[in-house]
Amino acid sequence: MSRITVQLNSENSAETVSAIQGENVLEALRRNAGASPAAPCAGRGRCGRCRIRLLSPGDGQVPDFHPDEEKHLSRSDREAGIRLACLLPAVNGMQLHLDEQGAARIETRAEGLEEELDPVLRRVSTVLPRGSLEDQRSAAFRLEEALDLEAGTIPARLAAQLPAIPDGTTPVSVVLHDGRPVAVDPGLGADAPVWAAAVDIGTTTVAMYLVNLAGGDVAGSAAEMNAQGSYGADVISRLEHARKGAEERKTLQKAIVEQLGRLLTRLCAENRVELRDVLLLSVAGNTAMIHLMAGWDPAGLGEAPFLPAALESPAFDAREIGLGDFSRLRVWPLPSLSAYVGADITGGLVASGMKDRDGTDLLLDIGTNGEMALGGSDGLLCCSTAAGPAFEGAHLSSGSGSVPGAVDHVDWTDGRFSYTTIADAPARGFCGSGVVDLVAFLVKSGLMDETGRIEEDPSELKKEGSEDLFAGLDIHVGETGAELHWPGAAGSTLGFTQKDLREVQLAKAAIRAGIDTLLEHSGKTAEDIGTLWLAGGFGSYIRPESAAAIGLIPPELGDKTRSLGNAAARGALLSLLSRSRRDEALRIAREARAIELSGRPEFQNAYIEGMMFPSNGEF
Amino acid sequence: MSRITVQLNSENSAETVSAIQGENVLEALRRNAGASPAAPCAGRGRCGRCRIRLLSPGDGQVPDFHPDEEKHLSRSDREAGIRLACLLPAVNGMQLHLDEQGAARIETRAEGLEEELDPVLRRVSTVLPRGSLEDQRSAAFRLEEALDLEAGTIPARLAAQLPAIPDGTTPVSVVLHDGRPVAVDPGLGADAPVWAAAVDIGTTTVAMYLVNLAGGDVAGSAAEMNAQGSYGADVISRLEHARKGAEERKTLQKAIVEQLGRLLTRLCAENRVELRDVLLLSVAGNTAMIHLMAGWDPAGLGEAPFLPAALESPAFDAREIGLGDFSRLRVWPLPSLSAYVGADITGGLVASGMKDRDGTDLLLDIGTNGEMALGGSDGLLCCSTAAGPAFEGAHLSSGSGSVPGAVDHVDWTDGRFSYTTIADAPARGFCGSGVVDLVAFLVKSGLMDETGRIEEDPSELKKEGSEDLFAGLDIHVGETGAELHWPGAAGSTLGFTQKDLREVQLAKAAIRAGIDTLLEHSGKTAEDIGTLWLAGGFGSYIRPESAAAIGLIPPELGDKTRSLGNAAARGALLSLLSRSRRDEALRIAREARAIELSGRPEFQNAYIEGMMFPSNGEF
Repeated sequence: MSRITVQLNSENSAETVSAIQGENVLEALRRNAGASPAAPCAGRGRCGRCRIRLLSPGDGQVPDFHPDEEKHLSRSDREAGIRLACLLPAVNGMQLHLDEQGAARIETRAEGLEEELDPVLRRVSTVLPRGSLEDQRSAAFRLEEALDLEAGTIPARLAAQLPAIPDGTTPVSVVLHDGRPVAVDPGLGADAPVWAAAVDIGTTTVAMYLVNLAGGDVAGSAAEMNAQGSYGADVISRLEHARKGAEERKTLQKAIVEQLGRLLTRLCAENRVELRDVLLLSVAGNTAMIHLMAGWDPAGLGEAPFLPAALESPAFDAREIGLGDFSRLRVWPLPSLSAYVGADITGGLVASGMKDRDGTDLLLDIGTNGEMALGGSDGLLCCSTAAGPAFEGAHLSSGSGSVPGAVDHVDWTDGRFSYTTIADAPARGFCGSGVVDLVAFLVKSGLMDETGRIEEDPSELKKEGSEDLFAGLDIHVGETGAELHWPGAAGSTLGFTQKDLREVQLAKAAIRAGIDTLLEHSGKTAEDIGTLWLAGGFGSYIRPESAAAIGLIPPELGDKTRSLGNAAARGALLSLLSRSRRDEALRIAREARAIELSGRPEFQNAYIEGMMFPSNGEF
Repeated sequence: MSRITVQLNSENSAETVSAIQGENVLEALRRNAGASPAAPCAGRGRCGRCRIRLLSPGDGQVPDFHPDEEKHLSRSDREAGIRLACLLPAVNGMQLHLDEQGAARIETRAEGLEEELDPVLRRVSTVLPRGSLEDQRSAAFRLEEALDLEAGTIPARLAAQLPAIPDGTTPVSVVLHDGRPVAVDPGLGADAPVWAAAVDIGTTTVAMYLVNLAGGDVAGSAAEMNAQGSYGADVISRLEHARKGAEERKTLQKAIVEQLGRLLTRLCAENRVELRDVLLLSVAGNTAMIHLMAGWDPAGLGEAPFLPAALESPAFDAREIGLGDFSRLRVWPLPSLSAYVGADITGGLVASGMKDRDGTDLLLDIGTNGEMALGGSDGLLCCSTAAGPAFEGAHLSSGSGSVPGAVDHVDWTDGRFSYTTIADAPARGFCGSGVVDLVAFLVKSGLMDETGRIEEDPSELKKEGSEDLFAGLDIHVGETGAELHWPGAAGSTLGFTQKDLREVQLAKAAIRAGIDTLLEHSGKTAEDIGTLWLAGGFGSYIRPESAAAIGLIPPELGDKTRSLGNAAARGALLSLLSRSRRDEALRIAREARAIELSGRPEFQNAYIEGMMFPSNGEF
């Protein structure tokens, strides 16, 4: 890995950015540059948004367009040198241009939002009426009257600004949070930006969006690996660390709070927003992440009966958690629903709009836990089920996170077994969506029976006409049963063993049992479900038909799925952009019922039933 | 002035306190001791509250009881060695005992308060209900439900405390501020103290009261000279200093804020209250003092059209003004009414209860400015008029502040001219109440005519039978007219000159013109006034009949006066102890109309008329 640099120009700045030979431009810019293109697909070559202009190829030649670039870029784009940063290898001396307009702009306007932009922070404006011997009332009172605010509601710290504002001439605008003044900006009109941010504190990734609530536009996004990662990759390890004492809890809090500050500072810099101008940060995340951020002891989350300190709180001053650089920032955690159904699910419910719809929908977020909510305007029932990390590619012999080279999809529909990898990089293992496809292939091809036993002698299957399905497949029997091997990158193999299958089997049984238990509790069947909303990264890339084929979801739902992307962050954003969505979040917190699955006989029954795979179908 | 020390013991502490030969014990303790007795009369020997036990007289003999001590102390008190600290000269080596119970306890329960104790902070208590697998809601939610609070209102920083509270066993109490939780105290029941403080930031003196809102009892009081004094004795000098720039404003703010912290810390120490347990500080003071405390630029107050930055604000976090030691303290300034009718007057109005009464009352607070309000439940009209410092004893040839030796009353009713001094100390000059009495004497004795000219040859007056009235009086003619001289202390004289008389004449004309203008504006006459409420120190000691005799107040009001003492502080206290009184303060702020007198022809007429003195009466 030799160190190289690329040159990044934008309209008003130029910087030299360190990169690592072999990584792509997006990775380099995200890690080291002051600005980076938006990439909602997290750099997987899927969304086509990380546009950047290649001015000069540096030490290399202009690389050919990747097929995915050809898909996303028009001919005129390509002629203008536009490339997708995530598909463009970084080359020493390369010169790039980041278009500020398009760069950090991502598709985050939620469906239906245009009609209902009614942000929680609203800017109103006036000219401060002149005082006189006849009107000696205070500047604060004159401003309150001019803006039709309740008298005496301008806080002391805002009143302190007023004497410096010339009256009778300069416009002055006031930002209201639910009608209460929270900021005074001399010289600005009612149409000036109102900056806020939404963040999803994922256990793995923290994704933040900077949004101008005045127009509803997301100005930019930034994401990093959760800085608490060094204290454990998963929630349980973090909770264990926090358990050691108040110091350790503070350390975890500091890690995430400083990261929030860093991300927000970066977004502000990229968009030339003053730190003091960001007024509200809405925070989604699982219950543990919210606890650690807010400084609540999460000890109760880690052991029965799984009691949170708090599930919600009113917005609080950012200084309370140490975000002192943002002098006017308030922090609002979206409400969580239980110790294991967090504010991320609330965000997903807000993003899905389920609570407002008649009928029954299902929201499903699959990670280490499968969190889910069933219902609609009649009520919501939710639960969390321990799936384990199989769908995150962990604990599998050839598992992989969602990184370049991960097998994200397996195909056999044209009678040939094939797979694709993230960023078309050399195959290094199966990530979650690839695992589901692979197991679906095992089901469909008859390589595995309903109990999850992989055929140790599939000679029968390799009958005429199906050779291509099993091309390259090597099967032998190991200690725990059959082991399948396909050719991987650089002479390695992609393995999938009976033990791997059991991991997947337990995970899918847990999730399916959660779904079935919610259905049973609601007196509904899978057929009653109108839409299955899939939240999170896994939900975005999973093939619904594969999920149905392996029984992860009821077969009736295979063609009723809709992906919400980062539903948690979207919900947090929507809660800023729309008071009714924010109120919906609060209503959800009041009305949703979280049920604890552990120890429930109906869950145990469903879990055992969920172990079985559907019988093999036909191609 | 030789430095001496006295020994102060109390139940749980003993300290050696520096004193100055010649000062009294109260002065010494107030300046240098950790605890000092309460003294509502500010050490004038009037209230009899500054009780202290003399254990040993030190280098001196046990001093005789002062006549005022005999008045206030029972025989058994005296036999037990109880003395009044303000009347007891400090002597080197003296040993004193301060009874903690009685010491810092003062009479501040307002009349009628017993019936309406309904404090703005209220403690409610419960046992945190146990969570379980069947009730996995958050600790915050269980607490909210148990206390019948709105869900989701426990702030993040309070929720942080909850996991440490054992559920199902320990009582936990929550302090509510208008129904919103502001403090959580594990282990305390609903009857635990709720500490708050009220302060009057006078231009000269800052007086603070620590109060337990649970019982309504004032636990102690502390007073100091306003620490801004070194930046000017009066409001105008302070405003001029603040005008120099933001740094100077900060300096003034820091001076008063640190003083508030010091006083509150002292009160907490004296009453063994943790700093974090003081939850609310209500602040009265004139508009300039409130501005400087809250960090509002007072520049507008100092020049026409006399515009304040703000007259009121919701309670704010004490950290916002730098009171960081009090981690749970919020600060609430009582509303002011205009640039020159301040929160001290609002406090006085609250203390008088005028706003709730039918009919018409007048509230009068005489200092450098005469601030006043006229009205009742029908509405309030208020104004401020520039009296100058004559009634504070300044700018007079033998003027004095209210310190020991100041002539506070002049008497002639038994046919002899005599005077009393504060603390019976040797006469050193006239303070405000003494000046009013003296001028009344001039009016009544015919030594002065209606225009304010002092007789240069009063031989006519010294007729038979009145010799005692003019005993010791020496009259001669100086540059500006007659000069009167009475024997003072140690061979000095107490002078009162024609020029002094003119100062008083201008001051009383201004105040009287204010009263008359308010009456005229309201379409009322002095006869319509039910009660004249006198606020402030001057109001406590002035003789109403003398005030009427010199025309300072309309003659009809001479026997309708009632003194409110430190009305501002009392109003601030009442605003803590009673929500209806607090709401009254807010209503006053909305409804009272402040009128600017300068430039009004009716005021000018009244001012010129007010120059005249009533014709001399009879003895």
